[in-house]
Amino acid sequence: MNPPSALFVDLYELTMAQLYYERGITGEAVFELTVRSMPDGWEYLIAAGLDRALHFLESLQFDDDDLAYVASLPQFDSEFIDRLRQLRFTGEVWAPPEGTTVYPDEPLIQVVAPLPEGQIVETALINLIAYPTLVASKAARAVDAADGRPVIDFGSRRAHSSDAAIEATRAAYIAGFTATSSLQAGRLYDIPVTGTMAHSYILAEDDELAAFNAFATRYPGTTLLVDTYNTAEGVERTIEVAKRCGPGSIGAIRIDSGDLLTESRQARQRLDAAGLVSVRIIVSGGLDEYQIAELVEAGAPIDVFACGTNIVAPRDAATLDSAYKLVEYAGRAVAKRSEGKPSVGHRKQVWRLPEHDEIHPFDGGGVADAEPLLRPVMEHGRRIAAHAESLTQMRERAATRVIQSSVSVDQALLD
Amino acid sequence: MNPPSALFVDLYELTMAQLYYERGITGEAVFELTVRSMPDGWEYLIAAGLDRALHFLESLQFDDDDLAYVASLPQFDSEFIDRLRQLRFTGEVWAPPEGTTVYPDEPLIQVVAPLPEGQIVETALINLIAYPTLVASKAARAVDAADGRPVIDFGSRRAHSSDAAIEATRAAYIAGFTATSSLQAGRLYDIPVTGTMAHSYILAEDDELAAFNAFATRYPGTTLLVDTYNTAEGVERTIEVAKRCGPGSIGAIRIDSGDLLTESRQARQRLDAAGLVSVRIIVSGGLDEYQIAELVEAGAPIDVFACGTNIVAPRDAATLDSAYKLVEYAGRAVAKRSEGKPSVGHRKQVWRLPEHDEIHPFDGGGVADAEPLLRPVMEHGRRIAAHAESLTQMRERAATRVIQSSVSVDQALLD
Repeated sequence: MNPPSALFVDLYELTMAQLYYERGITGEAVFELTVRSMPDGWEYLIAAGLDRALHFLESLQFDDDDLAYVASLPQFDSEFIDRLRQLRFTGEVWAPPEGTTVYPDEPLIQVVAPLPEGQIVETALINLIAYPTLVASKAARAVDAADGRPVIDFGSRRAHSSDAAIEATRAAYIAGFTATSSLQAGRLYDIPVTGTMAHSYILAEDDELAAFNAFATRYPGTTLLVDTYNTAEGVERTIEVAKRCGPGSIGAIRIDSGDLLTESRQARQRLDAAGLVSVRIIVSGGLDEYQIAELVEAGAPIDVFACGTNIVAPRDAATLDSAYKLVEYAGRAVAKRSEGKPSVGHRKQVWRLPEHDEIHPFDGGGVADAEPLLRPVMEHGRRIAAHAESLTQMRERAATRVIQSSVSVDQALLD
Repeated sequence: MNPPSALFVDLYELTMAQLYYERGITGEAVFELTVRSMPDGWEYLIAAGLDRALHFLESLQFDDDDLAYVASLPQFDSEFIDRLRQLRFTGEVWAPPEGTTVYPDEPLIQVVAPLPEGQIVETALINLIAYPTLVASKAARAVDAADGRPVIDFGSRRAHSSDAAIEATRAAYIAGFTATSSLQAGRLYDIPVTGTMAHSYILAEDDELAAFNAFATRYPGTTLLVDTYNTAEGVERTIEVAKRCGPGSIGAIRIDSGDLLTESRQARQRLDAAGLVSVRIIVSGGLDEYQIAELVEAGAPIDVFACGTNIVAPRDAATLDSAYKLVEYAGRAVAKRSEGKPSVGHRKQVWRLPEHDEIHPFDGGGVADAEPLLRPVMEHGRRIAAHAESLTQMRERAATRVIQSSVSVDQALLD
């Protein structure tokens, strides 16, 4: 997906930037984007969204229409419009690669740039990183809960927009989902696509049997949706069709309603009794990691979990509580002390040890036997080539998630 | 914003469509998008998102890249690819205009089209209408709670994507918000833009006083953010700056943390004592309608509420529970009977009476003294010109929200 327009920016970023230029406050700034607190019950986050954020920074440029609009606002003078016309992102970026396990207070992205540049990109960077990280984290929890069974993405219709949907699909794939129903995400990100059938198909045919026959004949190995009228009857019709069309004609059934534990058990029993042991059972319908865990723990004979709504717009975490904060300006550590929402000054590095993470000042030297989490990914406004990664690499990183017992913050950062 | 690509579609829509064509199931279908249940405590919904949905339908067309991708999938043959190449939306659409108060089970959009066309647009239509309707409804609740005080949108960074952000801003504006911080939404939809300053500006200057002075001098009538270090001290500095720069130099202060009732009262008292009775108080920080109502009821001296997170991604309603269902095919009413998720067959019309709504079969004749909610907005795949409306008209419609005591469903629909 193309990154947002440069005009995807809050007004105050530009009023501040104009003053920075006018007052010569254009020294080197360090901004860090962090999650402030974890959603209830979550143990870790999976970083995602960096690639598109870097694309945004690389291509940042106000076009003539943008500039004409900004010039039409009463706050801005022509000198600033000229500066805005010349503006490119020239800074340096450090970040944990996508798929990395991260924790609150650990920077998801660290921007080192002349203050106006670091300021102007705030709105877009939060937007581009917080949501994919939310979805990757939620999806990883679903994958954990599924305990080895594939989890697939059906969320496009429920996402808050088409580009949110596509980035959600990508993030869930990084976190271990195995396929998506979204053709656009499939094409853009080379993610395997999958699908079943909708109730409408069955309703449009003369009856369920005709619908099942048509799908099994046209798409051998298909998945039949069995709950349009009555799940038990849908399973019987599946058996009938399998007998008529041959054992390979039906790959799976999908159950989208009712008590999924009971329905899946009854379906499994009937399928097995009919000799259809290879027909798999897919379930869907507002699933999240809690329902998946319950079904898995109860031993539900479910082979694939299809998730949508509660991964792309999780009911327990509609957003991540994140902030993009200035932590250093011209070599001086800065922090706000707002009641209940203080920030932690100093440019930071996160050191990963086998059992816990340590957050230290960036230039405080290394930590023995620890791996630095933030890596350089952009220099002088250009991506560092070595950083370019495939989704497969990100998936592998996410698959070896690191559940730390604690994250400690260097006292030097808090003084 | 441009509508989504035609390829923003779930795989199963196309496997179904291919079979519809092959089996000649291409008669007239009626699909309806409805909300199935209301988020807890909500009394009404405000319809939004229709304009972009119609734009999507009008411009629906698979391009060569889309077709090459679809052709690369094992399910599709060249005859279908040719059909897809020719495919345009030729149907009819009925809908309540944006800004209309609506209730669960009342169609947000009704599509009457050859079955494959009505089917293929499912993914995009749900995506394009459910989220703006969610945000407009949530925003209207915030406007209700603010009881006449302006509510403004600061949500761009928290939305799930940049296009979600822009559509959220538009939806909130329809619902009665008065301005936005988003320049892109401001430009695209001609919505007034507004803004204050961020903590970073204050941290980058030598001290808070210098930052306040700079803003008050450069932007007379500005809003100063007073809680970076200590709100009470920030208010004292505001008074100091107002004395130095003149009474018109400061339009407002913003408080973004702490107990907003206490902080706003103390600030108001100090400002008034200093003769700054015209300096307004803006508050922000994860506000929703419940917090706004609490502050208003407690008599907090707050002039403007700035909302972000909990409007664009509401914690009590991450999505609306909506469905796009086939309700008639070739003149025959159809409905699924899935356990806990039945649909209601028949094409419908909603009749609005002074105190309640009645949902009847579409062709069942009128209801005396009632207004039909669904209006024709597209014919033969083209927008009906008379439908084109300004955001102002939608805002006016939303401003006269209709809180109905009940919605009754004609028994003929349920049999």
